[in-house]
Amino acid sequence: MDGGERQEAFWARYRQDGIWPPGPWNPAIAGLMAHRSVRAYLPDALEPGTLETLVAAAQSAASSSNLQLWDVVAVEDPARKDRLSMLAGDQAQIREAPLFLVWIANFARAEAMAQAAGRELDAVHYLEMLMVAIVDASLAAQNATVAAESLGLGAVYIGAVRNHIDQVAAELELPRRAFALFGMVVGRADPARPTDVKPRLPQAVVLHREKFQPDANLDLISDYDKKIMEFQHEQAMAEIGWTRTVLSRLRNAGSLHGREHAKEILSGLGFQIR
Amino acid sequence: MDGGERQEAFWARYRQDGIWPPGPWNPAIAGLMAHRSVRAYLPDALEPGTLETLVAAAQSAASSSNLQLWDVVAVEDPARKDRLSMLAGDQAQIREAPLFLVWIANFARAEAMAQAAGRELDAVHYLEMLMVAIVDASLAAQNATVAAESLGLGAVYIGAVRNHIDQVAAELELPRRAFALFGMVVGRADPARPTDVKPRLPQAVVLHREKFQPDANLDLISDYDKKIMEFQHEQAMAEIGWTRTVLSRLRNAGSLHGREHAKEILSGLGFQIR
Repeated sequence: MDGGERQEAFWARYRQDGIWPPGPWNPAIAGLMAHRSVRAYLPDALEPGTLETLVAAAQSAASSSNLQLWDVVAVEDPARKDRLSMLAGDQAQIREAPLFLVWIANFARAEAMAQAAGRELDAVHYLEMLMVAIVDASLAAQNATVAAESLGLGAVYIGAVRNHIDQVAAELELPRRAFALFGMVVGRADPARPTDVKPRLPQAVVLHREKFQPDANLDLISDYDKKIMEFQHEQAMAEIGWTRTVLSRLRNAGSLHGREHAKEILSGLGFQIR
Repeated sequence: MDGGERQEAFWARYRQDGIWPPGPWNPAIAGLMAHRSVRAYLPDALEPGTLETLVAAAQSAASSSNLQLWDVVAVEDPARKDRLSMLAGDQAQIREAPLFLVWIANFARAEAMAQAAGRELDAVHYLEMLMVAIVDASLAAQNATVAAESLGLGAVYIGAVRNHIDQVAAELELPRRAFALFGMVVGRADPARPTDVKPRLPQAVVLHREKFQPDANLDLISDYDKKIMEFQHEQAMAEIGWTRTVLSRLRNAGSLHGREHAKEILSGLGFQIR
Protein backbone atom coordinates (compact mmCIF):
# COMPACT_ATOMS: atom_id res chain seq x y z
CA MET A 1 0.00 0.00 0.00
CA ASP A 2 0.94 3.65 -0.34
CA GLY A 3 3.34 4.54 2.47
CA GLY A 4 2.99 8.22 1.61
CA GLU A 5 -0.75 8.10 2.14
CA ARG A 6 -0.24 6.40 5.51
CA GLN A 7 2.30 9.03 6.59
CA GLU A 8 -0.08 11.81 5.57
CA ALA A 9 -3.00 10.27 7.46
CA PHE A 10 -0.88 9.90 10.60
CA TRP A 11 0.34 13.46 10.25
CA ALA A 12 -3.20 14.80 9.95
CA ARG A 13 -4.31 12.85 13.03
CA TYR A 14 -1.30 13.59 15.23
CA ARG A 15 0.67 16.41 13.58
CA GLN A 16 3.80 14.51 14.59
CA ASP A 17 5.93 13.76 11.58
CA GLY A 18 8.36 10.96 10.89
CA ILE A 19 7.91 9.00 14.09
CA TRP A 20 5.75 6.18 12.79
CA PRO A 21 6.99 2.66 12.19
CA PRO A 22 6.02 1.13 8.86
CA GLY A 23 2.85 -0.86 9.18
CA PRO A 24 -0.23 -2.19 7.44
CA TRP A 25 -2.51 0.12 5.47
CA ASN A 26 -5.60 -0.20 3.34
CA PRO A 27 -8.59 1.89 2.19
CA ALA A 28 -10.74 0.87 5.16
CA ILE A 29 -8.13 2.17 7.62
CA ALA A 30 -7.64 5.30 5.51
CA GLY A 31 -11.40 5.86 5.83
CA LEU A 32 -11.37 5.42 9.62
CA MET A 33 -8.44 7.80 10.04
CA ALA A 34 -10.07 10.45 7.85
CA HIS A 35 -13.03 10.79 10.24
CA ARG A 36 -14.21 14.25 11.12
CA SER A 37 -17.40 15.19 12.95
CA VAL A 38 -19.57 17.07 10.46
CA ARG A 39 -21.59 19.93 11.94
CA ALA A 40 -22.89 21.59 8.74
CA TYR A 41 -25.20 19.73 6.35
CA LEU A 42 -27.04 20.04 3.08
CA PRO A 43 -30.75 19.15 3.26
CA ASP A 44 -30.38 16.53 0.48
CA ALA A 45 -32.33 13.32 0.99
CA LEU A 46 -30.34 10.11 1.45
CA GLU A 47 -30.29 7.46 -1.25
CA PRO A 48 -33.14 4.96 -0.67
CA GLY A 49 -32.02 1.95 1.38
CA THR A 50 -29.33 3.94 3.20
CA LEU A 51 -31.02 3.69 6.60
CA GLU A 52 -31.43 -0.08 6.32
CA THR A 53 -27.77 -0.41 5.31
CA LEU A 54 -26.58 1.68 8.28
CA VAL A 55 -28.71 -0.36 10.68
CA ALA A 56 -27.41 -3.62 9.19
CA ALA A 57 -23.85 -2.40 9.72
CA ALA A 58 -24.78 -1.42 13.29
CA GLN A 59 -26.35 -4.78 14.06
CA SER A 60 -23.22 -6.48 12.73
CA ALA A 61 -21.14 -5.09 15.60
CA ALA A 62 -20.39 -7.39 18.51
CA SER A 63 -23.02 -7.67 21.24
CA SER A 64 -22.24 -8.95 24.73
CA SER A 65 -23.74 -12.47 24.96
CA ASN A 66 -25.74 -11.40 21.87
CA LEU A 67 -28.16 -9.60 24.22
CA GLN A 68 -28.80 -6.80 21.68
CA LEU A 69 -29.84 -4.33 24.37
CA TRP A 70 -30.23 -1.40 22.01
CA ASP A 71 -32.70 0.02 19.51
CA VAL A 72 -32.55 2.98 17.19
CA VAL A 73 -35.22 5.55 16.34
CA ALA A 74 -34.86 7.11 12.88
CA VAL A 75 -36.30 10.63 12.94
CA GLU A 76 -36.90 12.38 9.63
CA ASP A 77 -39.96 14.52 10.42
CA PRO A 78 -38.77 18.16 10.43
CA ALA A 79 -41.03 19.15 13.33
CA ARG A 80 -39.76 16.31 15.51
CA LYS A 81 -36.15 17.00 14.54
CA ASP A 82 -36.72 20.60 15.53
CA ARG A 83 -38.13 19.64 18.94
CA LEU A 84 -35.27 17.20 19.55
CA SER A 85 -32.80 19.86 18.48
CA MET A 86 -34.23 22.23 21.10
CA LEU A 87 -33.95 19.53 23.77
CA ALA A 88 -30.30 18.95 22.76
CA GLY A 89 -28.90 22.45 23.19
CA ASP A 90 -30.47 23.94 20.04
CA GLN A 91 -28.03 22.29 17.65
CA ALA A 92 -28.78 23.46 14.10
CA GLN A 93 -27.27 20.39 12.45
CA ILE A 94 -30.13 18.22 13.75
CA ARG A 95 -32.56 20.42 11.82
CA GLU A 96 -30.35 20.75 8.73
CA ALA A 97 -29.62 17.11 7.99
CA PRO A 98 -32.26 14.72 6.65
CA LEU A 99 -31.78 11.99 9.26
CA PHE A 100 -31.41 12.00 13.03
CA LEU A 101 -30.78 8.60 14.60
CA VAL A 102 -31.43 8.28 18.32
CA TRP A 103 -29.68 5.30 19.87
CA ILE A 104 -31.62 3.73 22.72
CA ALA A 105 -30.35 1.58 25.57
CA ASN A 106 -33.36 -0.70 25.84
CA PHE A 107 -34.29 -3.25 28.51
CA ALA A 108 -38.02 -3.06 27.70
CA ARG A 109 -37.75 -5.82 25.10
CA ALA A 110 -36.17 -8.16 27.65
CA GLU A 111 -38.88 -7.18 30.14
CA ALA A 112 -41.62 -8.04 27.62
CA MET A 113 -39.94 -11.39 26.95
CA ALA A 114 -39.71 -12.07 30.69
CA GLN A 115 -43.33 -11.12 31.26
CA ALA A 116 -44.44 -13.51 28.47
CA ALA A 117 -42.44 -16.25 30.19
CA GLY A 118 -43.81 -15.42 33.65
CA ARG A 119 -40.35 -14.46 34.84
CA GLU A 120 -38.82 -11.45 36.55
CA LEU A 121 -35.56 -9.75 35.67
CA ASP A 122 -33.51 -8.21 38.43
CA ALA A 123 -30.07 -7.81 36.85
CA VAL A 124 -31.24 -4.73 34.91
CA HIS A 125 -30.83 -2.80 38.15
CA TYR A 126 -27.07 -3.24 38.30
CA LEU A 127 -24.56 -0.72 37.00
CA GLU A 128 -22.96 -3.64 35.15
CA MET A 129 -25.97 -4.20 32.90
CA LEU A 130 -26.20 -0.49 32.19
CA MET A 131 -22.55 -0.63 31.10
CA VAL A 132 -23.29 -3.61 28.84
CA ALA A 133 -26.13 -1.75 27.12
CA ILE A 134 -24.07 1.44 26.75
CA VAL A 135 -21.10 -0.44 25.29
CA ASP A 136 -23.25 -2.45 22.87
CA ALA A 137 -25.17 0.60 21.65
CA SER A 138 -21.89 2.45 21.16
CA LEU A 139 -20.25 -0.34 19.17
CA ALA A 140 -23.33 -0.51 16.96
CA ALA A 141 -23.52 3.25 16.45
CA GLN A 142 -19.85 3.44 15.55
CA ASN A 143 -20.37 0.83 12.84
CA ALA A 144 -23.19 3.00 11.47
CA THR A 145 -20.85 6.00 11.48
CA VAL A 146 -18.14 4.06 9.66
CA ALA A 147 -20.69 2.82 7.11
CA ALA A 148 -22.11 6.32 6.56
CA GLU A 149 -18.64 7.81 6.07
CA SER A 150 -17.70 5.02 3.66
CA LEU A 151 -20.68 6.18 1.56
CA GLY A 152 -19.37 9.74 1.51
CA LEU A 153 -21.89 10.93 4.09
CA GLY A 154 -21.11 12.98 7.16
CA ALA A 155 -22.15 12.16 10.72
CA VAL A 156 -21.83 13.56 14.22
CA TYR A 157 -22.74 12.20 17.65
CA ILE A 158 -25.09 14.28 19.78
CA GLY A 159 -24.47 13.53 23.46
CA ALA A 160 -26.71 16.46 24.33
CA VAL A 161 -29.81 14.25 24.02
CA ARG A 162 -28.81 13.42 27.61
CA ASN A 163 -29.36 17.06 28.66
CA HIS A 164 -33.04 16.16 29.07
CA ILE A 165 -33.22 12.37 29.15
CA ASP A 166 -36.81 12.40 30.40
CA GLN A 167 -38.13 14.85 27.81
CA VAL A 168 -36.38 13.04 24.96
CA ALA A 169 -37.89 9.77 26.25
CA ALA A 170 -41.33 11.43 26.22
CA GLU A 171 -40.85 12.87 22.71
CA LEU A 172 -39.90 9.45 21.34
CA GLU A 173 -42.54 7.66 23.47
CA LEU A 174 -39.90 5.36 24.91
CA PRO A 175 -41.15 2.59 27.18
CA ARG A 176 -40.09 2.25 30.82
CA ARG A 177 -36.52 0.92 31.14
CA ALA A 178 -35.28 2.53 27.94
CA PHE A 179 -33.42 5.80 27.42
CA ALA A 180 -31.71 7.76 24.65
CA LEU A 181 -27.96 7.32 25.00
CA PHE A 182 -26.95 9.69 22.19
CA GLY A 183 -28.16 10.98 18.87
CA MET A 184 -26.42 10.85 15.52
CA VAL A 185 -26.92 13.29 12.68
CA VAL A 186 -26.45 11.77 9.21
CA GLY A 187 -26.42 13.64 5.93
CA ARG A 188 -24.36 15.18 3.22
CA ALA A 189 -21.70 17.58 4.52
CA ASP A 190 -22.09 21.15 3.29
CA PRO A 191 -18.96 21.71 1.19
CA ALA A 192 -19.22 25.45 1.84
CA ARG A 193 -18.63 24.88 5.56
CA PRO A 194 -15.93 22.19 5.66
CA THR A 195 -14.17 20.80 8.69
CA ASP A 196 -10.81 19.10 9.05
CA VAL A 197 -9.34 16.08 10.83
CA LYS A 198 -8.88 16.99 14.50
CA PRO A 199 -5.50 16.14 16.02
CA ARG A 200 -5.54 13.69 18.92
CA LEU A 201 -3.23 13.07 21.87
CA PRO A 202 0.08 11.43 20.95
CA GLN A 203 0.04 7.65 21.12
CA ALA A 204 2.76 7.92 23.76
CA VAL A 205 0.08 9.39 26.06
CA VAL A 206 -2.76 6.89 25.55
CA LEU A 207 -1.04 3.64 24.54
CA HIS A 208 0.59 1.68 27.35
CA ARG A 209 2.71 -1.47 27.05
CA GLU A 210 2.05 -4.35 29.43
CA LYS A 211 0.94 -2.06 32.27
CA PHE A 212 -0.23 1.47 32.78
CA GLN A 213 2.59 4.01 32.77
CA PRO A 214 2.11 6.25 35.82
CA ASP A 215 3.50 9.37 34.13
CA ALA A 216 0.63 11.42 32.65
CA ASN A 217 3.11 12.99 30.21
CA LEU A 218 2.12 16.56 30.98
CA ASP A 219 4.91 17.79 28.69
CA LEU A 220 3.38 15.98 25.72
CA ILE A 221 -0.03 17.31 26.75
CA SER A 222 1.40 20.81 26.74
CA ASP A 223 2.64 20.25 23.16
CA TYR A 224 -0.79 18.90 22.27
CA ASP A 225 -2.41 22.06 23.65
CA LYS A 226 -0.45 24.01 21.05
CA LYS A 227 -1.57 21.69 18.25
CA ILE A 228 -5.20 22.06 19.29
CA MET A 229 -4.82 25.84 19.38
CA GLU A 230 -3.35 25.70 15.89
CA PHE A 231 -6.34 23.60 14.77
CA GLN A 232 -8.77 25.99 16.47
CA HIS A 233 -7.09 28.91 14.71
CA GLU A 234 -7.38 27.20 11.32
CA GLN A 235 -11.06 26.45 11.97
CA ALA A 236 -11.77 30.00 13.16
CA MET A 237 -12.76 28.62 16.58
CA ALA A 238 -11.93 30.18 19.95
CA GLU A 239 -8.28 29.30 20.65
CA ILE A 240 -8.64 27.81 24.09
CA GLY A 241 -6.45 24.75 23.64
CA TRP A 242 -7.20 21.37 25.15
CA THR A 243 -6.34 21.56 28.87
CA ARG A 244 -8.82 24.38 29.46
CA THR A 245 -11.57 22.37 27.72
CA VAL A 246 -10.91 19.32 29.86
CA LEU A 247 -10.73 21.24 33.14
CA SER A 248 -13.83 23.24 32.30
CA ARG A 249 -15.94 20.27 31.16
CA LEU A 250 -14.98 18.17 34.19
CA ARG A 251 -15.11 20.94 36.79
CA ASN A 252 -18.43 20.36 38.49
CA ALA A 253 -22.12 19.68 38.05
CA GLY A 254 -22.55 23.14 36.53
CA SER A 255 -20.63 22.03 33.45
CA LEU A 256 -22.99 19.11 32.80
CA HIS A 257 -25.98 21.01 31.35
CA GLY A 258 -28.62 19.03 33.17
CA ARG A 259 -26.83 15.73 32.76
CA GLU A 260 -25.87 15.82 36.44
CA HIS A 261 -29.40 14.51 37.04
CA ALA A 262 -28.94 11.42 34.88
CA LYS A 263 -28.92 9.05 37.83
CA GLU A 264 -32.19 10.33 39.31
CA ILE A 265 -33.86 10.49 35.90
CA LEU A 266 -32.78 6.94 35.06
CA SER A 267 -34.09 5.90 38.45
CA GLY A 268 -37.46 7.38 37.46
CA LEU A 269 -37.29 5.40 34.21
CA GLY A 270 -36.87 2.15 36.15
CA PHE A 271 -33.12 1.71 36.65
CA GLN A 272 -32.07 1.38 40.29
CA ILE A 273 -28.34 1.39 39.42
CA ARG A 274 -27.04 -0.72 42.27
CA MET B 1 -22.03 -2.35 -6.72
CA ASP B 2 -22.86 -6.03 -6.64
CA GLY B 3 -26.51 -6.44 -5.60
CA GLY B 4 -26.01 -10.18 -5.21
CA GLU B 5 -23.24 -9.67 -2.67
CA ARG B 6 -25.46 -7.25 -0.71
CA GLN B 7 -28.35 -9.75 -0.70
CA GLU B 8 -26.02 -12.50 0.52
CA ALA B 9 -24.61 -10.34 3.30
CA PHE B 10 -28.10 -9.39 4.49
CA TRP B 11 -29.17 -13.01 4.34
CA ALA B 12 -26.21 -14.12 6.45
CA ARG B 13 -26.89 -11.41 9.03
CA TYR B 14 -30.68 -11.85 9.23
CA ARG B 15 -31.56 -15.12 7.49
CA GLN B 16 -34.55 -13.28 6.05
CA ASP B 17 -34.53 -13.41 2.28
CA GLY B 18 -35.90 -11.05 -0.32
CA ILE B 19 -37.21 -8.36 2.01
CA TRP B 20 -34.47 -5.77 1.54
CA PRO B 21 -34.87 -2.61 -0.45
CA PRO B 22 -32.08 -1.86 -2.89
CA GLY B 23 -29.53 0.39 -1.31
CA PRO B 24 -25.93 1.50 -1.25
CA TRP B 25 -23.12 -1.01 -0.95
CA ASN B 26 -19.34 -0.98 -0.93
CA PRO B 27 -16.39 -3.06 0.36
CA ALA B 28 -16.27 -1.19 3.68
CA ILE B 29 -19.90 -2.08 4.43
CA ALA B 30 -19.32 -5.63 3.24
CA GLY B 31 -16.48 -5.81 5.76
CA LEU B 32 -18.63 -4.49 8.63
CA MET B 33 -21.43 -6.92 7.85
CA ALA B 34 -19.07 -9.89 7.68
CA HIS B 35 -18.03 -9.43 11.33
CA ARG B 36 -17.81 -12.48 13.50
CA SER B 37 -16.32 -12.72 16.99
CA VAL B 38 -13.28 -14.97 16.72
CA ARG B 39 -12.67 -17.24 19.71
CA ALA B 40 -9.90 -19.50 18.32
CA TYR B 41 -6.52 -18.09 17.31
CA LEU B 42 -3.17 -19.03 15.88
CA PRO B 43 -0.18 -17.84 17.92
CA ASP B 44 1.30 -16.00 14.89
CA ALA B 45 2.84 -12.62 15.65
CA LEU B 46 1.21 -9.56 14.12
CA GLU B 47 2.89 -7.62 11.32
CA PRO B 48 5.10 -4.85 12.83
CA GLY B 49 3.23 -1.55 13.08
CA THR B 50 -0.15 -3.24 13.45
CA LEU B 51 -0.68 -2.06 17.04
CA GLU B 52 0.08 1.58 16.14
CA THR B 53 -2.30 1.36 13.19
CA LEU B 54 -5.12 -0.05 15.34
CA VAL B 55 -4.59 2.66 17.96
CA ALA B 56 -4.56 5.36 15.28
CA ALA B 57 -7.87 4.04 13.96
CA ALA B 58 -9.22 4.00 17.53
CA GLN B 59 -8.12 7.57 18.23
CA SER B 60 -9.79 8.66 15.00
CA ALA B 61 -13.24 7.83 16.40
CA ALA B 62 -15.34 10.69 17.73
CA SER B 63 -14.70 11.81 21.31
CA SER B 64 -17.25 13.82 23.31
CA SER B 65 -15.89 17.39 23.50
CA ASN B 66 -12.57 15.78 22.48
CA LEU B 67 -12.07 14.77 26.13
CA GLN B 68 -10.31 11.50 25.16
CA LEU B 69 -11.17 9.83 28.45
CA TRP B 70 -9.72 6.45 27.51
CA ASP B 71 -6.40 4.68 27.27
CA VAL B 72 -5.41 1.26 26.07
CA VAL B 73 -2.94 -1.23 27.53
CA ALA B 74 -1.38 -3.60 24.98
CA VAL B 75 -0.51 -6.88 26.68
CA GLU B 76 1.75 -9.32 24.84
CA ASP B 77 3.62 -10.98 27.70
CA PRO B 78 2.38 -14.59 27.90
CA ALA B 79 2.50 -14.68 31.69
CA ARG B 80 0.43 -11.51 32.02
CA LYS B 81 -2.03 -12.68 29.36
CA ASP B 82 -2.39 -15.89 31.32
CA ARG B 83 -3.11 -14.06 34.58
CA LEU B 84 -5.62 -11.76 32.85
CA SER B 85 -7.22 -14.77 31.24
CA MET B 86 -7.73 -16.36 34.67
CA LEU B 87 -9.28 -13.13 35.96
CA ALA B 88 -11.63 -13.08 32.96
CA GLY B 89 -13.28 -16.46 33.33
CA ASP B 90 -10.33 -18.53 32.10
CA GLN B 91 -10.83 -17.68 28.43
CA ALA B 92 -8.29 -19.61 26.35
CA GLN B 93 -8.34 -17.13 23.45
CA ILE B 94 -6.58 -14.51 25.60
CA ARG B 95 -3.67 -16.92 25.99
CA GLU B 96 -3.74 -18.13 22.38
CA ALA B 97 -3.65 -14.84 20.51
CA PRO B 98 -0.52 -12.64 20.39
CA LEU B 99 -2.21 -9.41 21.53
CA PHE B 100 -4.66 -8.55 24.29
CA LEU B 101 -5.80 -4.95 24.35
CA VAL B 102 -7.37 -3.71 27.57
CA TRP B 103 -9.48 -0.57 27.10
CA ILE B 104 -9.39 1.76 30.07
CA ALA B 105 -11.89 4.44 31.08
CA ASN B 106 -9.39 6.92 32.46
CA PHE B 107 -9.96 10.09 34.50
CA ALA B 108 -6.48 10.00 36.03
CA ARG B 109 -5.00 12.05 33.19
CA ALA B 110 -7.58 14.80 33.73
CA GLU B 111 -6.84 14.65 37.46
CA ALA B 112 -3.11 15.08 36.84
CA MET B 113 -3.84 18.04 34.57
CA ALA B 114 -6.12 19.58 37.20
CA GLN B 115 -3.54 19.07 39.93
CA ALA B 116 -0.87 20.80 37.83
CA ALA B 117 -3.27 23.72 37.38
CA GLY B 118 -4.18 23.81 41.07
CA ARG B 119 -7.76 22.91 40.28
CA GLU B 120 -10.22 20.28 41.47
CA LEU B 121 -12.51 18.18 39.32
CA ASP B 122 -15.88 17.18 40.68
CA ALA B 123 -17.82 16.17 37.56
CA VAL B 124 -16.00 12.82 37.44
CA HIS B 125 -18.33 11.67 40.21
CA TYR B 126 -21.46 11.86 38.10
CA LEU B 127 -22.96 8.92 36.23
CA GLU B 128 -23.00 11.19 33.18
CA MET B 129 -19.21 11.43 32.99
CA LEU B 130 -18.90 7.69 33.44
CA MET B 131 -21.25 7.29 30.47
CA VAL B 132 -19.13 9.71 28.41
CA ALA B 133 -15.98 7.70 29.10
CA ILE B 134 -17.69 4.37 28.39
CA VAL B 135 -19.14 5.62 25.11
CA ASP B 136 -15.85 7.15 23.96
CA ALA B 137 -13.82 4.05 24.81
CA SER B 138 -16.36 1.89 23.00
CA LEU B 139 -16.36 4.00 19.83
CA ALA B 140 -12.57 3.87 19.82
CA ALA B 141 -12.41 0.13 20.40
CA GLN B 142 -14.91 -0.54 17.65
CA ASN B 143 -12.74 1.39 15.20
CA ALA B 144 -9.83 -0.82 16.25
CA THR B 145 -11.96 -3.90 15.62
CA VAL B 146 -13.00 -2.66 12.19
CA ALA B 147 -9.38 -1.87 11.34
CA ALA B 148 -8.17 -5.29 12.53
CA GLU B 149 -10.83 -7.11 10.54
CA SER B 150 -10.00 -5.05 7.44
CA LEU B 151 -6.47 -6.44 7.77
CA GLY B 152 -7.77 -10.01 7.81
CA LEU B 153 -7.29 -10.36 11.56
CA GLY B 154 -9.83 -11.67 14.02
CA ALA B 155 -10.94 -9.97 17.23
CA VAL B 156 -13.29 -10.51 20.14
CA TYR B 157 -14.41 -8.32 23.03
CA ILE B 158 -13.84 -9.65 26.54
CA GLY B 159 -16.40 -8.10 28.90
CA ALA B 160 -15.28 -10.57 31.56
CA VAL B 161 -12.41 -8.26 32.55
CA ARG B 162 -15.21 -6.69 34.62
CA ASN B 163 -15.62 -9.93 36.62
CA HIS B 164 -12.78 -8.66 38.82
CA ILE B 165 -12.39 -4.96 38.10
CA ASP B 166 -10.16 -4.41 41.14
CA GLN B 167 -7.79 -7.31 40.42
CA VAL B 168 -7.47 -6.36 36.76
CA ALA B 169 -6.71 -2.78 37.85
CA ALA B 170 -4.02 -4.13 40.18
CA GLU B 171 -2.52 -6.39 37.48
CA LEU B 172 -2.26 -3.46 35.06
CA GLU B 173 -1.18 -1.03 37.80
CA LEU B 174 -3.99 1.33 36.89
CA PRO B 175 -4.04 4.66 38.74
CA ARG B 176 -6.95 5.77 40.91
CA ARG B 177 -9.94 6.87 38.82
CA ALA B 178 -9.27 4.45 35.98
CA PHE B 179 -10.74 1.01 35.29
CA ALA B 180 -10.71 -1.68 32.59
CA LEU B 181 -13.96 -1.45 30.63
CA PHE B 182 -13.35 -4.47 28.41
CA GLY B 183 -10.58 -6.43 26.79
CA MET B 184 -10.08 -7.22 23.13
CA VAL B 185 -8.23 -10.23 21.76
CA VAL B 186 -6.53 -9.61 18.40
CA GLY B 187 -4.83 -12.20 16.24
CA ARG B 188 -5.09 -14.50 13.29
CA ALA B 189 -8.17 -16.71 13.37
CA ASP B 190 -7.44 -20.43 13.48
CA PRO B 191 -8.83 -21.72 10.17
CA ALA B 192 -9.28 -25.16 11.73
CA ARG B 193 -11.84 -23.75 14.18
CA PRO B 194 -13.89 -21.34 12.06
CA THR B 195 -16.97 -19.41 13.13
CA ASP B 196 -19.78 -17.93 11.09
CA VAL B 197 -21.78 -14.70 10.93
CA LYS B 198 -24.30 -14.73 13.78
CA PRO B 199 -27.87 -13.81 12.86
CA ARG B 200 -29.31 -10.75 14.57
CA LEU B 201 -32.84 -9.63 15.44
CA PRO B 202 -34.89 -8.50 12.43
CA GLN B 203 -34.66 -4.79 11.70
CA ALA B 204 -38.42 -4.63 12.30
CA VAL B 205 -37.66 -5.31 15.98
CA VAL B 206 -34.86 -2.81 16.60
CA LEU B 207 -35.44 -0.02 14.05
CA HIS B 208 -38.22 2.43 14.88
CA ARG B 209 -39.55 5.23 12.69
CA GLU B 210 -40.15 8.64 14.26
CA LYS B 211 -41.03 7.18 17.66
CA PHE B 212 -40.64 3.97 19.57
CA GLN B 213 -43.13 1.29 18.56
CA PRO B 214 -44.63 -0.10 21.76
CA ASP B 215 -45.05 -3.64 20.37
CA ALA B 216 -42.00 -5.74 21.35
CA ASN B 217 -42.77 -8.05 18.36
CA LEU B 218 -42.67 -11.25 20.39
CA ASP B 219 -43.74 -13.19 17.29
CA LEU B 220 -40.66 -12.02 15.40
CA ILE B 221 -38.54 -12.80 18.46
CA SER B 222 -39.97 -16.31 18.46
CA ASP B 223 -38.92 -16.70 14.80
CA TYR B 224 -35.50 -15.36 15.75
CA ASP B 225 -35.21 -17.96 18.50
CA LYS B 226 -35.47 -20.63 15.80
CA LYS B 227 -32.78 -18.96 13.69
CA ILE B 228 -30.43 -18.80 16.65
CA MET B 229 -31.08 -22.46 17.41
CA GLU B 230 -30.29 -23.27 13.79
CA PHE B 231 -27.04 -21.27 14.11
CA GLN B 232 -26.20 -23.00 17.41
CA HIS B 233 -26.81 -26.37 15.76
CA GLU B 234 -24.49 -25.49 12.84
CA GLN B 235 -21.79 -24.33 15.27
CA ALA B 236 -22.16 -27.44 17.47
CA MET B 237 -23.19 -25.21 20.38
CA ALA B 238 -25.91 -26.00 22.93
CA GLU B 239 -29.23 -25.26 21.20
CA ILE B 240 -30.80 -22.97 23.76
CA GLY B 241 -32.10 -20.27 21.43
CA TRP B 242 -32.10 -16.59 22.25
CA THR B 243 -34.91 -15.95 24.72
CA ARG B 244 -33.44 -18.35 27.26
CA THR B 245 -30.05 -16.63 27.00
CA VAL B 246 -31.59 -13.21 27.57
CA LEU B 247 -33.73 -14.30 30.52
CA SER B 248 -30.86 -16.22 32.09
CA ARG B 249 -28.27 -13.45 31.68
CA LEU B 250 -30.63 -10.77 33.04
CA ARG B 251 -32.20 -12.82 35.80
CA ASN B 252 -30.41 -11.60 38.89
CA ALA B 253 -27.09 -10.77 40.49
CA GLY B 254 -26.14 -14.45 40.37
CA SER B 255 -25.86 -14.26 36.58
CA LEU B 256 -23.34 -11.40 36.72
CA HIS B 257 -20.22 -13.37 37.73
CA GLY B 258 -18.93 -10.81 40.21
CA ARG B 259 -19.91 -7.85 38.09
CA GLU B 260 -22.80 -7.13 40.44
CA HIS B 261 -20.16 -5.46 42.63
CA ALA B 262 -19.08 -3.01 39.93
CA LYS B 263 -20.59 -0.01 41.67
CA GLU B 264 -18.86 -0.67 45.02
CA ILE B 265 -15.57 -1.50 43.33
CA LEU B 266 -15.70 1.66 41.21
CA SER B 267 -16.48 3.57 44.37
CA GLY B 268 -13.28 2.16 45.87
CA LEU B 269 -11.42 3.29 42.74
CA GLY B 270 -12.62 6.86 43.26
CA PHE B 271 -15.94 7.12 41.41
CA GLN B 272 -18.84 8.23 43.60
CA ILE B 273 -21.40 7.73 40.79
CA ARG B 274 -23.93 10.36 41.79
